[in-house]
Formats: sequence, structure tokens, C-alpha cells
Amino acid sequence: MPELRKDPVTGRWVIIATDRAKRPGEFIRHPVPPPSARVCPYDYGNEHKTPPEILAYRNNGGRDEPGWRVRVVPHKFPVLGIEGELSRQGEGMYDKMTGIGAHEVIIESPEHSATLADLPERQIEEVLWASKERINDLKRDVRFRYVILFKNYGEAAGASLEHGHSQLIALSVIPKRVKEEVDGAKLFYDMKERCIFCDILRQESATGARLVLETDRFVALEPYAPRFPFETWILPKRHESHYEDADAPTLQNLAWVLRSTLRKIDKTLERPAYNLMVHSAPLQEPDLPYYHWHLEIIPRLTKVAGFEWGTGFYINPTAPEESARFLREAGLG
Amino acid sequence: MPELRKDPVTGRWVIIATDRAKRPGEFIRHPVPPPSARVCPYDYGNEHKTPPEILAYRNNGGRDEPGWRVRVVPHKFPVLGIEGELSRQGEGMYDKMTGIGAHEVIIESPEHSATLADLPERQIEEVLWASKERINDLKRDVRFRYVILFKNYGEAAGASLEHGHSQLIALSVIPKRVKEEVDGAKLFYDMKERCIFCDILRQESATGARLVLETDRFVALEPYAPRFPFETWILPKRHESHYEDADAPTLQNLAWVLRSTLRKIDKTLERPAYNLMVHSAPLQEPDLPYYHWHLEIIPRLTKVAGFEWGTGFYINPTAPEESARFLREAGLG
Repeated sequence: MPELRKDPVTGRWVIIATDRAKRPGEFIRHPVPPPSARVCPYDYGNEHKTPPEILAYRNNGGRDEPGWRVRVVPHKFPVLGIEGELSRQGEGMYDKMTGIGAHEVIIESPEHSATLADLPERQIEEVLWASKERINDLKRDVRFRYVILFKNYGEAAGASLEHGHSQLIALSVIPKRVKEEVDGAKLFYDMKERCIFCDILRQESATGARLVLETDRFVALEPYAPRFPFETWILPKRHESHYEDADAPTLQNLAWVLRSTLRKIDKTLERPAYNLMVHSAPLQEPDLPYYHWHLEIIPRLTKVAGFEWGTGFYINPTAPEESARFLREAGLG
Repeated sequence: MPELRKDPVTGRWVIIATDRAKRPGEFIRHPVPPPSARVCPYDYGNEHKTPPEILAYRNNGGRDEPGWRVRVVPHKFPVLGIEGELSRQGEGMYDKMTGIGAHEVIIESPEHSATLADLPERQIEEVLWASKERINDLKRDVRFRYVILFKNYGEAAGASLEHGHSQLIALSVIPKRVKEEVDGAKLFYDMKERCIFCDILRQESATGARLVLETDRFVALEPYAPRFPFETWILPKRHESHYEDADAPTLQNLAWVLRSTLRKIDKTLERPAYNLMVHSAPLQEPDLPYYHWHLEIIPRLTKVAGFEWGTGFYINPTAPEESARFLREAGLG
């Protein structure tokens, strides 16, 4: 019998379609192909093919020269413009706003063909550090109310360049999905005076059925009501609402946890395309006792179709207890 | 300069990324290939390969025999089970429910390779009529609170069988996305004592910039804040909250409008994969003065990626005024 499960934070229901249960091998697999050797604007020597760098960690070389380990540049085709006044306007019954924002690319390594999971731990730590540093800088611009940090890996996940990179988009509004999550967490806090994510961590650590891995600082788990097969969340154990406030030992451990989790996913699902998103509290909010930053990883194995678009309901053919078991048993490759 | 636009019903913002503006020819096109001649459970003579039919409009033949024009059967691999008690249960801090529901397939024609846009108007009218009849029947089961009627066309849109079909899923909960839309419309009504969709119809009819086509009973338009390029809505001019209450002249005209709209989309975008969803008021509600049923069509031209999953915000590279112009100018093929 299929089961309806409710995400405790957002109230979103999902159908765990047990009768259609799928094991990892049953998904149509499209492993992300190894990168080809095209001319790439993110390679050493092509620094002039991107807009001038905003930040770089370097072994040697000057600004916009080779020698960097991690490099942050404005996106060449930004979805929002950094210049201009934030102005709101009506259009008959409708509302619009100038598209002010920032759109940056974090080039994760000079190595063209290294995936995030391939990189040494120390390199991943620097990528995380660069994102933290950039968010803290963008925060000073009071026009910005939210920054989303995300990564699209593989064409099926929306990546258009194969060289490993993450993206940052700063927005002048708090997005709907974020507001929902923050409001849901606040509602729980108002009732219980506890952070709902801290409660999730405790229950998942105790039952263990949906755990992927655990360190003294982090838990990687399959959520109780995942939208997608093998959807995986990584949560810090210590309560903290803003990702950009994470300290050095936290990011150091996160690098290991993220690398290990991605390697387990690669091993179990044969290097699938995936989206990775950092969920964090709105930029200009103080520390919130009810919100808890975390990472969400969605391997792209199924298609979102009419049912999902029409209802916001998701059909997931793999129970999270199943996917957690596969990921737990997969080695670190 | 890109523009942020707000959907007036749900409050969802989208980025109209004018700097990345895309014309129809610039999308990577994957026209849905013409159907191959595989053995198909929806063809004449294979009626025993589906569960026994629930409804059929026939020229001749008996139950589960050839001779039908439109045939409705239970889905062979339903996402929800029709039998059993609706029971709710906690699991520690989580909530779950037995997966009770109905999942039916409307086989739109005996012709294996006809798309919905290819069918004669009269045949489309019968498909619409069959869906109305089925929803009204499912409504009598008080366990069901919502029925979603949708169609996935093409593999990229999630279709697994190529023979033209639509689907119905009856649910024991009102989905989040529906609740949001209904609540948004109610909020507007509480303020203005007018239906927001009626207001949209009036404004769009008056300005014309986003109109695709118009009859005395319907308007097909590109919404002001579309999530996707060439997202198209079809709204009845007469206020009515429930699709299943539509009368015969309404469905007759809808058949023409739907066929014409799909043909314009096929012509402009070279037969793209698409999702089609009917948005209607929750089943057990009486006529609502604030909600207005309508159709949404989403051609699958772009990939949903980390930014969208993380924020619920959408980046749309084509302004609806642009896509409306292309669709208006396309003939009916």
C-alpha cells in the first residue's frame, strides 16, 4: 500500500509509491559523461574570458592570471543586474520590480575535469570558504534580502558548462520557497519552543533508519518525506540559522561530509546529474532560534510531470529508508 | 534590464531575464518523435492488457472490446490504491496517511499515433466530456478531496507510453499548490469582492499584449508572470469554480480552443513535449465566488535547476509579450 507522508517543515505531502518501488539499478541512468577538452573560460590561461575576478585564493600570479586554486567571478550572462535602483511598480493589477541582484560563479578548481566529489577535502573546504566570504560581502548591500548558493552538476541538472562550478544569486526579495520553510519552522517553534530541525536531527539520530552518515558535527540523511528518490540533506548538529556564520572547524568537517556523501551517491547511482542547494535564513535577519541552515542534494533520476506541476505534490518511487540503506552500504569510493 | 514579476494569485515571483531573451528557434529543440509501431496496451485488440474499463464511448463492441472512441481504465500501476480505509498516523514527530486514491487513464483515441492536437474537434470534446464524467463520479466518494486531471506529452514531459492519453488522480488531501492558489484568490476576493481570474481576463482582453486567442467563451493567454517560456493558460470567460460543472457548449468550445492553442504551440516550437493541467476548485467545495477553473500548458523547453528547487523562484528567458506574439502569429497549422 502506498503511503502519503508530510514534510514536517513545509507541510508538503509526498506519495511514497511503494508498489512502484525502485532500486538504484532500475532508474534509467544517464551518468554524466567525462568532460571533453573544449576551450573553457574557467581553465588556466582563459581568465580574460570571464568578467574580472571578485575573489581568488592563489598560489601565485596576479589578479585574473593563472595560479589560483578557487576563483569567483561575476556570471557572464547574469540573470539579474547589479547596477541600478531597486524600484517597484504596478502594471494595472500586476506588480513588478527592477531585476536588481548579483549573480556570481565560484570556479571550484583549475582542473577542467574534476568533479566536486573528486576534489581533495582541503579544496572543497576552500570552495565552501569562498562562498561564505562572498555571502558575507553581499550581505553588506542592503538591497539584498536573500542569497541562494547552488550547484548544477550535469546537463540533466541544468549545467551549461562542464568545468566544476557553483553559483550565487543575490535577490531583492525573499523567495516563496524560503519563506514557506522559515514560516513553517517558526510555527513549530511558537508551539514547542524548539527548533524543528534540531528535533529532526535527534529523532533521525535515534532511529537511524534514514541516516546516511554522521560525524560529531554533521548528519547526512534521507528526509522523511523526500520529493525525489535519493534526495539527501546534510544538517549541522549545532543550531545555527545562517550558513555564512559557520566557523572554520564546521566548514572543514562539512567538506569531508559533503565529499563522502557525493561519493556515495556517485557509487550507488553511477555518477548522476544532481542539484545541490544551501538553505539558509534570510540575509538581513539576526540569528534565528527557529531556523537551521542545511544542504539539500537532489540526484536527477525522475521527471517532474503534470501531476507535480499541477499539485505541488510529489510521487517518489523509492522509500527514504531504502535509499538510506543503499547509501550507508556504499563505500566512499 | 531584467524584471521581477509577481504572479497575482500565488504571490510567486519570476525573473523575466530579458538580457538572455530567447526566441522560439533558440531553444534546444527535442521535437517529440513520431510514435513507433510497438505493441501498445491502448490499441484496439489489446483491451485485455489494461485493467477492465470504467467508461467508454463506443461505435460498437462490448465492454473491453474494440469499437470504442474514448476509453477510461484504471492505471495498471496506480500511484495510490483505491481499496482500504483512510487512516492517519504519527511516526514520532512525523505524519503519514494510507495512500488511498484513484488513478485512471483516459485513452484519447484508438489511433496509436494521433496527438491531442491532431484529433478532430469532436473527438477532443469527447475526451473532455469523459474527464468531466469521471470527476463527477469520483466526487461521490467522500474520501476524495481533490482530483487532478493532467496530460504528459513526450518523454521529456514524463510520458512513458506514446499512445495519446490523459490521467486523473483522486487524492484524500488538498495539495499544497492548489491550496495556495485557492487561498490567494480568496484573499483577493476578501479585499475586492471580485474574482481575481475575472479581473485578469478583463485586463488581458483590454490590453491584448499577452493574448493568444479569444472566443466568446474562452481566452488563451500567456500569464503576466510565467514560470516557463511559452507557458499558456486557457480560462473560461464565465465565472465557474469547478471544471466538472462545465456545460456542453463550454466543452464544445474548449475543444476548439485547446486544439487551436496546441497547434499554435506545435507550429511555433516544433512539436515540443508539454504538460497540461486542469486547475479546479477542491471537489467537495460548493461553487466558489473567488476561484475560477482553468487550464495550464507548459511546453518543456528549459531545465528546472538548483536555483528553482532552492527558492521556488523561476528564471524565464522569454517575456510573455514575446511568446504571445509568436503564438498569435502562428497559424492553426
